[in-house]
Amino acid sequence: MKAITLKQIAEELNISVTTVSKALKDYPDVSKKTKKQVKELAKKLNYIPNASAVNLRTQQTKTIGVIVPTTVHHFFATVIKGIIKAAKKKDYMVILMQSEEDVEQEIKSVDLLISKGVDGIMISLSNKTQNFDHLEKIKNHDIPLVLFDKISKITDCSKVVINDQKAAYEAVEYLIKKGYKRIAHFRGDLNPQVSIDRFLGYKKALLNNNIEFDPSLVYICNNNDDFNDGHASAKKLIDMHGKNVDALFAITDMVAIGALKYFNDNGIKIPKDIAIIGFSNWFMSSVITPTLTTIDQPGYKMGKTVFKLLYKEIKAKNVDIPYETIEMKTSLVIREST
Amino acid sequence: MKAITLKQIAEELNISVTTVSKALKDYPDVSKKTKKQVKELAKKLNYIPNASAVNLRTQQTKTIGVIVPTTVHHFFATVIKGIIKAAKKKDYMVILMQSEEDVEQEIKSVDLLISKGVDGIMISLSNKTQNFDHLEKIKNHDIPLVLFDKISKITDCSKVVINDQKAAYEAVEYLIKKGYKRIAHFRGDLNPQVSIDRFLGYKKALLNNNIEFDPSLVYICNNNDDFNDGHASAKKLIDMHGKNVDALFAITDMVAIGALKYFNDNGIKIPKDIAIIGFSNWFMSSVITPTLTTIDQPGYKMGKTVFKLLYKEIKAKNVDIPYETIEMKTSLVIREST
Repeated sequence: MKAITLKQIAEELNISVTTVSKALKDYPDVSKKTKKQVKELAKKLNYIPNASAVNLRTQQTKTIGVIVPTTVHHFFATVIKGIIKAAKKKDYMVILMQSEEDVEQEIKSVDLLISKGVDGIMISLSNKTQNFDHLEKIKNHDIPLVLFDKISKITDCSKVVINDQKAAYEAVEYLIKKGYKRIAHFRGDLNPQVSIDRFLGYKKALLNNNIEFDPSLVYICNNNDDFNDGHASAKKLIDMHGKNVDALFAITDMVAIGALKYFNDNGIKIPKDIAIIGFSNWFMSSVITPTLTTIDQPGYKMGKTVFKLLYKEIKAKNVDIPYETIEMKTSLVIREST
Repeated sequence: MKAITLKQIAEELNISVTTVSKALKDYPDVSKKTKKQVKELAKKLNYIPNASAVNLRTQQTKTIGVIVPTTVHHFFATVIKGIIKAAKKKDYMVILMQSEEDVEQEIKSVDLLISKGVDGIMISLSNKTQNFDHLEKIKNHDIPLVLFDKISKITDCSKVVINDQKAAYEAVEYLIKKGYKRIAHFRGDLNPQVSIDRFLGYKKALLNNNIEFDPSLVYICNNNDDFNDGHASAKKLIDMHGKNVDALFAITDMVAIGALKYFNDNGIKIPKDIAIIGFSNWFMSSVITPTLTTIDQPGYKMGKTVFKLLYKEIKAKNVDIPYETIEMKTSLVIREST
């Protein structure tokens, strides 16, 4: 028996081959009526799709993809651990790709995951990502997508985040309540949302507490090497402001620890001369001397939640379910550095 | 024109379909003469292999796979960074899988990489891997394989390692030369070669320096949580030996730092009461108080070397090239903890 082709179905219904293909793959831009007609005829004619063209949502691969900027950051390593743990329970394998903060690499990773065939994709964006066509591409392939931590606000999909602005606000307000007035901020790169949000939280806490915002107390850490960024910025901070700074809110624990190392090595007492708050509650923050006050960012739990959302979409298959944004709770962990 | 099948080639040459298939894929168990006959006839008849059956070494995917136990260990994260850096230069994408120290997961990861199609595979084995059939499977699929760090000695393939026994020997001998006599060892699990080798190096250094080996000074850390393993073992060590122990050689920096935290929190002075040496030179070892003496294990450089070996095999395609074992240099980094 000669195999039935898409062309035959198209001719029979007097529609284009593309429409037939899209209808079989449940693309949203084909009407329900057409989809029904195409599917019924395909069934009647015993149409067998070409293996390589099989839609991913109908033929599950039991494989999902994750793209993160790096695994050298302990936070991402713990998120991945959470994703793998949750995926394993549902018998899913996890393919991991690293963008290394390179947009080109992130786009290529998306292409690769699509071409290799995965049931869903989870991404934490690189710091440089400003165009989101590759995310739309995932959606156009009807592959469930969940963004986490470093997300794109304008992309319509499920997301797992923390409230960076609120967390930063609380950290800085805590410093102010403790009596610190000249509070520096070591921020991340200009672009990523988490960096913007933490900076905004810092600024808002100052303004709401009648402390003048001094831009010369803000340093940008964007060399993809948090420890050394923190260390170098601490030197610049002290060179410029000397004793006219009494606290520091750093965008990550690693940046904070880089600064802490500089202060420790240069006889600047923590918290007497300068207090420090980090961000993420990396376990090393409870081991270093002095131990670091920080914001707990639940990486492992976030990973499990990311998978949960993705799995829900995979299971829903071709039924449209509403996208969700889940905000993970953070908390301020007070230690010796403040 | 009707497509030529393997069967037709087999009939023409009076050999089995399997032999034809293997010959086209350059399997080592088919004679050169047969390979030549098959390939010539296939070319003459214009045989087009089925896409899904195309041999990976002839049709390159420009994708390679890495399987590591975890990325929470900074060492593996840096090895991966090195692999990705080197791969990118040659325009290769890297797919990462984590076994999470689970043999089943490691085997499934191998199967997945084979089925998704990669040009080569790099593995650092889980601590529990004792059967190596999945490694043979990779070789049977003619996919280049390079093992690194946690390897199988009996698997015939290229490897990148460090001399764990020698490195451990040097660390312990250094302690002995400094006058320490009651040297404890926090070792890894019983199975993995690195754990065995570091233990043997420890033991040999004692014996060669006329210090009696005391098994009660050796503790096993095998809960996949180095920091807490080190912390708990330190407690047991002090509970059992009190002041009758003056130094500790720990299998990883993380185990060492767990122990250091216990000593710091319990008024046990480092190095006055007890000296500590770690293993890996994780950058945190130079940040904690006191800074940690350790063995530098060049993860990033190892990653680059692993890719170099794999790339050589990929490029050699169907020509057999001799397997290589590259030993990366380690060195003792002396800091405040000894």
